[in-house]
Amino acid sequence: MLNQRYQTCIEACSACALVCETCAASCLRETDVKMMARCIELDRDCADLCALAALLMTRDSEHAKAVCRLCAQACRACAEECGKHQADHCKACAQACLRCAEECERMAA
Amino acid sequence: MLNQRYQTCIEACSACALVCETCAASCLRETDVKMMARCIELDRDCADLCALAALLMTRDSEHAKAVCRLCAQACRACAEECGKHQADHCKACAQACLRCAEECERMAA
Amino acid sequence: MLNQRYQTCIEACSACALVCETCAASCLRETDVKMMARCIELDRDCADLCALAALLMTRDSEHAKAVCRLCAQACRACAEECGKHQADHCKACAQACLRCAEECERMAA
Amino acid sequence: MLNQRYQTCIEACSACALVCETCAASCLRETDVKMMARCIELDRDCADLCALAALLMTRDSEHAKAVCRLCAQACRACAEECGKHQADHCKACAQACLRCAEECERMAA
Repeated sequence: MLNQRYQTCIEACSACALVCETCAASCLRETDVKMMARCIELDRDCADLCALAALLMTRDSEHAKAVCRLCAQACRACAEECGKHQADHCKACAQACLRCAEECERMAA
Repeated sequence: MLNQRYQTCIEACSACALVCETCAASCLRETDVKMMARCIELDRDCADLCALAALLMTRDSEHAKAVCRLCAQACRACAEECGKHQADHCKACAQACLRCAEECERMAA
Repeated sequence: MLNQRYQTCIEACSACALVCETCAASCLRETDVKMMARCIELDRDCADLCALAALLMTRDSEHAKAVCRLCAQACRACAEECGKHQADHCKACAQACLRCAEECERMAA
Repeated sequence: MLNQRYQTCIEACSACALVCETCAASCLRETDVKMMARCIELDRDCADLCALAALLMTRDSEHAKAVCRLCAQACRACAEECGKHQADHCKACAQACLRCAEECERMAA
């Protein structure tokens, strides 16, 4: 397969994209949405960067490394914000983001 | 050009996707985010369906009509919700959604 | 979790999107690209519909079922075309598409 | 509006994404697809980076500049390849890519 060597990073990005989407959608249904607004913003950017990173690695694109580098930054920013909240979806999101950041940093190194 | 006959619909979908994104991002920065939560949900779905509709028409895909049909429904739902709010971004969004719904309905007919 | 009941379908769509992307990128690097042109077209549409279906289920969107219905059609069309080719990436893609079509049909029922 | 200052860059990215998609889809229908394979690869990456750049600027995201920087690189790579081909869709694509690269470079500066 074309992209075998990226496999764990592709999986981490692909999983993280969906966990971030779940977190954003869940935040929107919390009682205090205002408190989650920043979390939703970072979730959305992180989800979109993770999805693009997975896509470009899957295609074995020459832009994959550079996107993974950005993706790692978005993941760290999102993990930090999610880490401030007690909701289960935020905790799961922080965890997925940290794992994805590590995979992307290794991949982009 | 491959997709000349879809041109006005592609432009309406492409514009609507960005207006919905602007509305969602602006709603998230309102003082009363809770009141805008449903608007943000519908904006996001509408933005993603509009973007896919534009993409598939651009490619002259055989799935373009069916996606335009769904896109029109998402646009009408989003326009109805945005129409309940007074913010400029909601008014602009309602207008873009109605125009896009009409274009997509014509295209899918 | 918000979207627990869609979990197997989300996973099937998410996996299928990446398998279709792999197939398209691999087809582009085959010696006889011309023979794979139709496969690439269907792979791309299928990948984008799968990605949107996964996204909308993840958000528990009211448009999720309708998009899964379309996604199933795109998967069946892609599986049929991939089934005509001998390359490993085409065989893997046909299989992922059939599995995703079944999940989406069950979800949309 | 949230993102007024990015307006010309958003429009350039949004237009370029669709022109790249048109070019990729048109290349796939050329008689000699093999000759266009590299063009299709670069078109697709460029389209996806342009779409994400437009999205992040629309949201006024803190990741917008960094994505515009990558987008400019993808646009320059795509313009160079498209510039080697005589097809109208390639010429139009090279032009849209150069314009988008300039806008993104100015935005990211």
